[in-house]
Amino acid sequence: MFRLIPREEKFFEFFEKAASNILEGARVLVQMTEEGNVNFQERWKRLEELEHVGDKITHQIIRKLNRTFITPIDREDIHSLAVALDDVMDLIEASAVRMTLYKIKQPTEEAGKLAMVILKSAEEIVKAVSNLERMDDVMEHCIEINRLENMADEISREAIADLFDKGHDPMDVIKWKEIYETMEMTTDACEDVANIVESVALKST
Amino acid sequence: MFRLIPREEKFFEFFEKAASNILEGARVLVQMTEEGNVNFQERWKRLEELEHVGDKITHQIIRKLNRTFITPIDREDIHSLAVALDDVMDLIEASAVRMTLYKIKQPTEEAGKLAMVILKSAEEIVKAVSNLERMDDVMEHCIEINRLENMADEISREAIADLFDKGHDPMDVIKWKEIYETMEMTTDACEDVANIVESVALKST
Amino acid sequence: MFRLIPREEKFFEFFEKAASNILEGARVLVQMTEEGNVNFQERWKRLEELEHVGDKITHQIIRKLNRTFITPIDREDIHSLAVALDDVMDLIEASAVRMTLYKIKQPTEEAGKLAMVILKSAEEIVKAVSNLERMDDVMEHCIEINRLENMADEISREAIADLFDKGHDPMDVIKWKEIYETMEMTTDACEDVANIVESVALKST
Repeated sequence: MFRLIPREEKFFEFFEKAASNILEGARVLVQMTEEGNVNFQERWKRLEELEHVGDKITHQIIRKLNRTFITPIDREDIHSLAVALDDVMDLIEASAVRMTLYKIKQPTEEAGKLAMVILKSAEEIVKAVSNLERMDDVMEHCIEINRLENMADEISREAIADLFDKGHDPMDVIKWKEIYETMEMTTDACEDVANIVESVALKST
Repeated sequence: MFRLIPREEKFFEFFEKAASNILEGARVLVQMTEEGNVNFQERWKRLEELEHVGDKITHQIIRKLNRTFITPIDREDIHSLAVALDDVMDLIEASAVRMTLYKIKQPTEEAGKLAMVILKSAEEIVKAVSNLERMDDVMEHCIEINRLENMADEISREAIADLFDKGHDPMDVIKWKEIYETMEMTTDACEDVANIVESVALKST
Repeated sequence: MFRLIPREEKFFEFFEKAASNILEGARVLVQMTEEGNVNFQERWKRLEELEHVGDKITHQIIRKLNRTFITPIDREDIHSLAVALDDVMDLIEASAVRMTLYKIKQPTEEAGKLAMVILKSAEEIVKAVSNLERMDDVMEHCIEINRLENMADEISREAIADLFDKGHDPMDVIKWKEIYETMEMTTDACEDVANIVESVALKST
């Protein structure tokens, strides 16, 4: 199969922007779990801004896609990747908004661990996405993101089981269960990104 | 790019039917939040009927799609739009069933607000979908549906946070949290409809 | 429309493997609801193994898809079907892990009923998928899977409503509500499989 020389490479730039945006969001989430609720309002406001930045990038990609005739990678992969990156940012914000609105005083140790897994996944997303144009060393980052998702899954399962065990107030159980689930869904969304990147890389070999 | 003159325009008719069906469903949901539980069983039965009507329309679209060679808009967009419209109707019914089965006595003010946002979104869906064939004035309705989804998101987030604040019974918290979330997911599904319509409109310009 | 004689029929073999894997998983889930928690750890370990087997089959399908030029059925249908079958297995395991980690002592009658519906759906999936290559008698199994999903939906709705009625401990309500929802989502995933198979069958007629 031959390949037309792609004319429009701007997509890779947009993907890299979306990935760094996610990385910054993940850093803010980690800060929230480390500092406690002293700066929750402020951190959450920052995450709302980052979410809007992400929305704009997604719209730019989709608009460009609809006006581009020859794309460097499959049209549907561009669309899915844009949506998947957007989902990651939305879920980081959704985790933060829950901690803030539910008036969490001190994030649990498990929330801290999950935020760190999200941060590491975000770092791997940046690496995978910035290697996507050259299709170089993409796979190892995708594998790592999958490993991190499994880790988040285990942490959140154990954390939720603990909530039931330790005689907590039902209200706290409801709040924390949802926060853990939202953080875990964030790593699921990271895995979706990895799966799309992996499939793009496989097609190109 | 030239366009083959489309032969099969029946799709637009089906989409309009699905949209009016949703609008009728949204009206019933608003009634439920206004009247209280006196007519819950009856209203819910009506919504089950409307859900079945929606299912039939979806199946007709997919069957026609599988037998049509030249479609007026992209095949995948027809499929996605049919599924997205179906999801909206399903989630309206899912909101109603929860109020009924959980034996809610008096829907909260916030449930009323969310039902109104769903009704307004349904009205915009009708307008967007009926303009789709002429590709006329579609965008403004999509933008409005997005705005309404943001509004529903805020109402439901605040409503859930309030549940934790006001010393409610844990059982009520669990019930209402799920009802608010289901109503909010309904507006998410409306947004999915808007995004597909927007993307169809963008491709045609 | 003519059809190129398909070269690569291995996809059907993989789909059949994924389907039998699901069937074995469903059997283990039924055992868990029948035996009570005496063997939970062991059964869950078995389901984790089956989940890994499922993951491998999914990866094999996607890898083969990316390297195959002429596919016996539409590329996207192969991809969607692989993902949908994987989702069923994941949700069977997710139901089991919740019963285990939440230290359920005696699965409820409703959990038993839902597990049986999942088992019957799995049996229909095996039949539908093994008929897919010959496109023979596929539809009746898809219709049955849809019927079973409706049944699971009703069982789980009633079961959750009962949780609120019968003066249960809030913790138990939270646990069982999630288990019922996860089991119901398993039948939703079975329905996704049926919908894809149905659409493949419709295209081929």
